[in-house]
Amino acid sequence: MTTTAPAARAYRRLSVEERRGQLLGAALRLFAHQAPEDVSLDDVAEAAGVSRPLVYRYFPGGKQQLYETALRSAADELRRCFGEPQAGPPTERLGRVLDRYLAFVDGHDAGFSALLRGGSVAETSRTTAIVDEVRRAAAEQILVHLGAERPGARLRMLVRTWIAAVEAASLIWLDERKQPPAPELRDWLIDHLVALLAASAATDPQTAEAIGGLLELERPDGPVGRLARGVLRMTESAARRR
Amino acid sequence: MTTTAPAARAYRRLSVEERRGQLLGAALRLFAHQAPEDVSLDDVAEAAGVSRPLVYRYFPGGKQQLYETALRSAADELRRCFGEPQAGPPTERLGRVLDRYLAFVDGHDAGFSALLRGGSVAETSRTTAIVDEVRRAAAEQILVHLGAERPGARLRMLVRTWIAAVEAASLIWLDERKQPPAPELRDWLIDHLVALLAASAATDPQTAEAIGGLLELERPDGPVGRLARGVLRMTESAARRR
Repeated sequence: MTTTAPAARAYRRLSVEERRGQLLGAALRLFAHQAPEDVSLDDVAEAAGVSRPLVYRYFPGGKQQLYETALRSAADELRRCFGEPQAGPPTERLGRVLDRYLAFVDGHDAGFSALLRGGSVAETSRTTAIVDEVRRAAAEQILVHLGAERPGARLRMLVRTWIAAVEAASLIWLDERKQPPAPELRDWLIDHLVALLAASAATDPQTAEAIGGLLELERPDGPVGRLARGVLRMTESAARRR
Repeated sequence: MTTTAPAARAYRRLSVEERRGQLLGAALRLFAHQAPEDVSLDDVAEAAGVSRPLVYRYFPGGKQQLYETALRSAADELRRCFGEPQAGPPTERLGRVLDRYLAFVDGHDAGFSALLRGGSVAETSRTTAIVDEVRRAAAEQILVHLGAERPGARLRMLVRTWIAAVEAASLIWLDERKQPPAPELRDWLIDHLVALLAASAATDPQTAEAIGGLLELERPDGPVGRLARGVLRMTESAARRR
């Protein structure tokens, strides 16, 4: 790092890795809040305070390469949200993961929508593969907490359909200007999974076994108890009306 | 069909509308069982027994136009599956719709997968809009049967997330070589919606009101009663173990 004239000096002050990280950070911020078609390479260069040719030097594939690198980085961040120790009431573990997940969706709103809604020009088999990896990581984590080392077809389908439901709910939440408040959406998503597990357990022995163990870890006044009492009240009042 | 000399005359025998329908029929059959990138304009011409230039005369936009026209036609067919009189036990109505829907998925397997999995080169904002229209039509039908003329946010989100879950389940079903058998998947999807409605009704008055009326139309030995008894048994045995 020697002293030189202005612009060039500013350029040299960062190492290759630092410069790459700086460009990627600028791209991440832009792609988080805009659809990829609304972000240009010039925008990235401007946000990073560098020239367009410099961006090309680090990302010769241009905008698509920057987009895919940013997506990979965001996907890794999201996967880290899923980690949670296997201790305490399972619905509380799930609640903490969903809080982190919804904060991620909140912080990447337009980019998240554009990516999952489909039909974007930036969508390729590579971007689809990255999204699928995140879905698989989420499913694996849930199965770990369910204690299902060798999940049967029913349990696997249950977990993957719930993840699809969470994605759909997230997109609707963004469409509805982030209403209801995130904690309310989180509680509804927890109820959704509990209801789904309960319904499947009624016909699938593996699901029944998995949730039998988890139920014992729940607090009596936790979401499972609350939900069971609510459903019970409703079926009783329907029976009376019959 | 009378006997005549070969090609040229065979071309003239059909009216413009008939020829268009014939080409579209060939395209529909090809796109149903293959990803759009695996179908060429030559394949369509060959399947219809015509020349490539003739296909272009009817579809100047080439393969993409044929794909989008075929998709529009398949989407209309799928929307017709959703119609069901508002009479009888609601879960039986839903069962009939799901039977027709799963038969459609079965009959359009590879095309259905390619379309919904994303990342296809044939995917555009137009194809995404067609898929979204079908989703909206499905949601509207469900809300009609729920008797919710002015659905609140919770009920709308519930219905749309269940539809997303059905799509995800359909893709998994195709991946798993159409296992479990369609009737079993149908019953699980019904249980899924019933469980979701019951869980939401516990906290959302509009959902509670909607299903209150529907419950009275169910048979005591129908899926709702079976599910309620199964869940009850399970919570009782968990309470005993506590």
